Amino acid sequence: MAALDEFLGQQVQAFEPEIRKMADYCIDTSGKRIRPTLVFLSGWQKSEKPSDDLVKAAAVVELVHLATLVHDDIMDEAELRRSRRTAAREYGATAAVLLGDALFSHALHLAAQFPTTEVCHMVSESTRKVCAGEIVQTLRRGSTRITREDYWRIIDLKTAELFRVSCYLGAFLSGAEPAYEDAVAKFGRHLGIAYQVYDDLADFFGDEGRIGKTLGTDFESGKITLPLLVLLEKLPVSERAALIEEICGRQPGNMDHRLKQMIDHEVFPAVSDAIQDEIAAAQQALASWPNEPPTALLLQLCDVLRAQVDGLDAV
Amino acid sequence: MAALDEFLGQQVQAFEPEIRKMADYCIDTSGKRIRPTLVFLSGWQKSEKPSDDLVKAAAVVELVHLATLVHDDIMDEAELRRSRRTAAREYGATAAVLLGDALFSHALHLAAQFPTTEVCHMVSESTRKVCAGEIVQTLRRGSTRITREDYWRIIDLKTAELFRVSCYLGAFLSGAEPAYEDAVAKFGRHLGIAYQVYDDLADFFGDEGRIGKTLGTDFESGKITLPLLVLLEKLPVSERAALIEEICGRQPGNMDHRLKQMIDHEVFPAVSDAIQDEIAAAQQALASWPNEPPTALLLQLCDVLRAQVDGLDAV
Repeated sequence: MAALDEFLGQQVQAFEPEIRKMADYCIDTSGKRIRPTLVFLSGWQKSEKPSDDLVKAAAVVELVHLATLVHDDIMDEAELRRSRRTAAREYGATAAVLLGDALFSHALHLAAQFPTTEVCHMVSESTRKVCAGEIVQTLRRGSTRITREDYWRIIDLKTAELFRVSCYLGAFLSGAEPAYEDAVAKFGRHLGIAYQVYDDLADFFGDEGRIGKTLGTDFESGKITLPLLVLLEKLPVSERAALIEEICGRQPGNMDHRLKQMIDHEVFPAVSDAIQDEIAAAQQALASWPNEPPTALLLQLCDVLRAQVDGLDAV
Repeated sequence: MAALDEFLGQQVQAFEPEIRKMADYCIDTSGKRIRPTLVFLSGWQKSEKPSDDLVKAAAVVELVHLATLVHDDIMDEAELRRSRRTAAREYGATAAVLLGDALFSHALHLAAQFPTTEVCHMVSESTRKVCAGEIVQTLRRGSTRITREDYWRIIDLKTAELFRVSCYLGAFLSGAEPAYEDAVAKFGRHLGIAYQVYDDLADFFGDEGRIGKTLGTDFESGKITLPLLVLLEKLPVSERAALIEEICGRQPGNMDHRLKQMIDHEVFPAVSDAIQDEIAAAQQALASWPNEPPTALLLQLCDVLRAQVDGLDAV
């Protein structure tokens, strides 16, 4: 990960002098680096440190992710990201739109430095899907027609896709056989879905200090998330309309009341089960490949995510 | 150009079903298609119609351009673009940010379909420069420190860069020798600068019906343009502060008054001379290559641009 941080730090120099400081501001964050981790683990071939190719690919997926965060924060009108002012607050929404574009462009520029066009191909398609997912999510905001199908579709595009490609690139760049590339990609997709559902669950049941953001922000910004969908399904029909009004922003969201209802209606275990199902599907994807070096490492991520879910305050 | 329109129309299908209509809305415009024209002319090898590679490259540069327009219109809070509502007005700023991203991504995805990574490499770098140019322009807005150096730097990045790459790709994909690739790239860059200065001049001296947008919009949105810089230089020192206040948006711009001053101070011929200089530099770039098939066609573009400048109403 130190190699990645060093490499990302160097990339700032590639930007035009006038925007280096801004690029540096976006890149120099204390994120969890989940996607680079997926690249490294999927590409691990028992070497002590990741190859230059893996470091570069990890930088590509992280830059794409950072670019989407910059654009997300504009739209959510977020104040803080990882305890710092968002780029949109620091430089204005206008500059932040363009800065996100520049980060995207540079990610693709790095992707084009591989001898094969495959990396560019995968990353650009993946980026388009991530954007499409965010667009669908945006279009659904304020809509009273809210279905589970929409939710799964959105998180598959906006989150699982980049997890999937991160895993795929790790395996691909380490010369894995195509069937294992596919297996690892499938693992990444299910892990990504599980992670997003966990993240959505943490919006209600997380510890603010630990997850580093204010609870209820998704709820208040009108994002449909699984805990809300499950609550909606469990509420008596007569009470659903009022919740829909809150989700779609026609009425202010009553976080305390809804959280209490979620506890009463056992939303937490239902959502937790959905996460476990996805984690199980991720594990299953690797079941035929117990001896490939990355397999054991990737499976450990499943345990980490399970522990994170267990660490939420189910009340 | 029909082949390009057909190809671009097909690309809509590549987007996720939920966003196809939006992508189609952005792509289906009656633009001037200047950058695709540069690709086609630079790559012309006496064949009747452009090769598939040229059509694809033309689509790539046009999609990048369309993506920047979508993002520009958000920032300028523009109502109309080419007599239609902008994507930002039609779908909201949030969706428009993401839609621009999706168009960018798809452009790079097409670029990755060439057997060589060179196209992806060139286009992604170029896109980053275009964004950097827009960022610098944005940061300068409202600034009272306005220099010609800033102006040239901005238009070199935001406009000339994509003209340059369009020409380069045309030559490159038609198997031109490297020295000619460089020559047409240089031609494209100077033509791009000349075109942008012309466009900025038209903001004051154009015919609204013919150029298809309201005069004075650049002035009112606080963009520094050469006509304003020249006027600033020609005004007595005592009158400059008031103009700077207008340019940086602290006072409302007095378009009629400033236009009259421009006429009095002969701003039009000064700016026109600057355009002619760039056109001459573009011609000069091709001077050693009179017999290459694209040369004569590209030089005709110089004549077209000269005629457009002559067509402005210098009063």
